Amino acid sequence: MLVGIIGGTGAQGLGIAKRLAIAGVDVIVGSRQEEKAIKVVEEAIEEIGQYNPAKMIGMANEDAAKEADILILTVPLQAQVATIKSIKDYVKGKIVLDATVPLESAIGGKVSSLLHVSHGSAAEITAKLLEDEGARVVVAFSNISNSHLANIPEPIDCDCLICGDDKEAKEVAAEIIDKIPDLRAIDVGGLEKAHLIESITPLLIGLNIKYKSHYGGFRITGVDFE
Amino acid sequence: MLVGIIGGTGAQGLGIAKRLAIAGVDVIVGSRQEEKAIKVVEEAIEEIGQYNPAKMIGMANEDAAKEADILILTVPLQAQVATIKSIKDYVKGKIVLDATVPLESAIGGKVSSLLHVSHGSAAEITAKLLEDEGARVVVAFSNISNSHLANIPEPIDCDCLICGDDKEAKEVAAEIIDKIPDLRAIDVGGLEKAHLIESITPLLIGLNIKYKSHYGGFRITGVDFE
Repeated sequence: MLVGIIGGTGAQGLGIAKRLAIAGVDVIVGSRQEEKAIKVVEEAIEEIGQYNPAKMIGMANEDAAKEADILILTVPLQAQVATIKSIKDYVKGKIVLDATVPLESAIGGKVSSLLHVSHGSAAEITAKLLEDEGARVVVAFSNISNSHLANIPEPIDCDCLICGDDKEAKEVAAEIIDKIPDLRAIDVGGLEKAHLIESITPLLIGLNIKYKSHYGGFRITGVDFE
Repeated sequence: MLVGIIGGTGAQGLGIAKRLAIAGVDVIVGSRQEEKAIKVVEEAIEEIGQYNPAKMIGMANEDAAKEADILILTVPLQAQVATIKSIKDYVKGKIVLDATVPLESAIGGKVSSLLHVSHGSAAEITAKLLEDEGARVVVAFSNISNSHLANIPEPIDCDCLICGDDKEAKEVAAEIIDKIPDLRAIDVGGLEKAHLIESITPLLIGLNIKYKSHYGGFRITGVDFE
């Protein structure tokens, strides 16, 4: 399994890339600029070398999308549409984990406020844009704080809600998520649930700001997932 | 402190009423029909008598609103506007805890789907309708399952997110919520956060349906609230 992180040089994408590499998953870190991806990966390998990571490779987003079996989209909302259009030709039938959240910061507003977007959610925008390519979109990683991801090798005390319309794609997403210590994937249903998952993110960010934390997360209680 | 539960004969309102009475808070259970409220309260007192509850009184919603110091609104969305209009004259300056959630079931749809409503959230509809009365609206109890509330005397393993624009009102709300065993009030900010809190409810209901539970809830992790 080769995972390509589209927009992988940002805090979220790079955090996921490092976590997965440490968990033994080969990853491609994609960026708009190939040189940036290569440089960032060099630094990352140096940083996490002690954990004996799997392969990490820096590439342009387009090449990452082409080479990888599974994609993880980690871009801010304002880069979402352009990024997806740039990789569209290489996504055919692939599983796309989408971490995009429609935060108001995309239009200069608050990072703790939600935007209402077309199609109901950021993930449904992704799905719509990649409809003709048969991409199988799964919401994933939307609720996990960047600080948590960066806090290597500490486990992440948070549940990772996922949703999507393709059962196999969700199984693969859960498998990837569950490789990160203490992170727990929970399937909440079809892609129409995406806006409910995405709504949790500004709420957690707001708690982080209000109570001066960086690690706001949550655990679902009272449900037996076995 | 005398708490009036508006729409208190439904599962949610009655669950809150019993829990508060057991915690030593005098409650009025309001209903559209006074006789119904009186009958339901008689049964409730019989049921929880062993826990030495505080006073429970059944009244028409209007009288409950008039007599109580603090109101808790527990009606389904389709009854929200009419109910608020019916009690409007008695709400002046009072603290109103609002548990209303805009579930799609209000229009015959799914209980696990959210409706987008005017003003952004059910609680902001309440606040708008009670604006001239100077009511101080706090979102509360929206995420707590009715089964949890009914499961007396078991503690409730869930956080209870609250938000509102009046600091004192939120303190009172937290004081009331924290009287119920294990329930923890968490202030997430101003009333503009209401839609984020309300979004969690259909998600939890969806998990309950999907995984055959009645007790789906959540705990915020990674934030120190002290």
